[in-house]
Amino acid sequence: MSQGLHIAGDEPSERADAARNRRLLLDAAGALVAEQGADAVTMDKVAAKAGVGKGTVFRRFTNRAGLMRALLDHTETQLQQDFMFGPPPLGPGAAPLDRLIAFGCARLALVGVEGEVLRAADASPETRYTHPAHRLCHAHITMLMRAAGVTGDIPLLADVLLASLDASLVMAQLTTPGVDLARVAAAWEDLVRRIVR
Amino acid sequence: MSQGLHIAGDEPSERADAARNRRLLLDAAGALVAEQGADAVTMDKVAAKAGVGKGTVFRRFTNRAGLMRALLDHTETQLQQDFMFGPPPLGPGAAPLDRLIAFGCARLALVGVEGEVLRAADASPETRYTHPAHRLCHAHITMLMRAAGVTGDIPLLADVLLASLDASLVMAQLTTPGVDLARVAAAWEDLVRRIVR
Repeated sequence: MSQGLHIAGDEPSERADAARNRRLLLDAAGALVAEQGADAVTMDKVAAKAGVGKGTVFRRFTNRAGLMRALLDHTETQLQQDFMFGPPPLGPGAAPLDRLIAFGCARLALVGVEGEVLRAADASPETRYTHPAHRLCHAHITMLMRAAGVTGDIPLLADVLLASLDASLVMAQLTTPGVDLARVAAAWEDLVRRIVR
Repeated sequence: MSQGLHIAGDEPSERADAARNRRLLLDAAGALVAEQGADAVTMDKVAAKAGVGKGTVFRRFTNRAGLMRALLDHTETQLQQDFMFGPPPLGPGAAPLDRLIAFGCARLALVGVEGEVLRAADASPETRYTHPAHRLCHAHITMLMRAAGVTGDIPLLADVLLASLDASLVMAQLTTPGVDLARVAAAWEDLVRRIVR
């Protein structure tokens, strides 16, 4: 496992340099999504935002679908770190109910990226329930429901909770007049309280 | 609109004959799904079960995907008739809570057909929320929740309830050791009771 190590020095290694550039580009792409929505993310704009040449973005991610997939992995990984090790209420230290509510709100904040990536990457609906990121989220909210003293069929209740946060569902909800992310987040909190009480 | 009318007589009209044959084939296909699962449905078996030649099945439905789509329409239409006009507890006359529970169980009974059709017909996840059948189910459970005195964001709660019955989710659940349709139905009833109480 020594390949993950390098000796820190004045000059970063090429590997560390590449990782830093990758993070720089994905942060730029994520900022674009937050500012202008996922549809606004183009290879050109990401390059401009990150202050690099367009060729660098293409070399790294091949095409827009590749960029969006990498962005999803990046944001998923960030979310996992936040709910496992980050500050409360998403991370450890808050009451299980509050952590559940925070989890849903954090996932909903990713829906714009997720939905776009699902479209761009032509992700199969069949594989989403077996994806490691999905399993980790399932394990997380199962743990929180047990800690909150929820009774009943907790694994299947966890499926329902995750299904309510599904990107394609939420994207469809957001096209309904009068429905915005704040309202979906409020409905999530209401649902969690009905299940936990 | 006179094209839908015909004069009843000793000899059924060709149109009525065709409709009866179509129903005969779809009933045979539905019976095969119930007995042996959706994977067992082939054009050959449907023809044998209905007592007609294989060519008749191909002329009517073109291929297996066409047959499965027609079967889904057929079963959806049947379900709609049952929950709008059929006997209680699915149809009118039972308490809203009992009708909600019965609705989920009836939908779950269709999951085998639905899941197979979604695969066979390559149905787009984007269109499922705008499909008329989905809208009708949404309107139905929204009405039942209001009648049961549920408070809160009823349209979004209805989305969650329907999402928990989604064919691709339930098919994935059924691949989990220890999970069968009866357990998913019990979880549905539990979920409905948490939302209605």
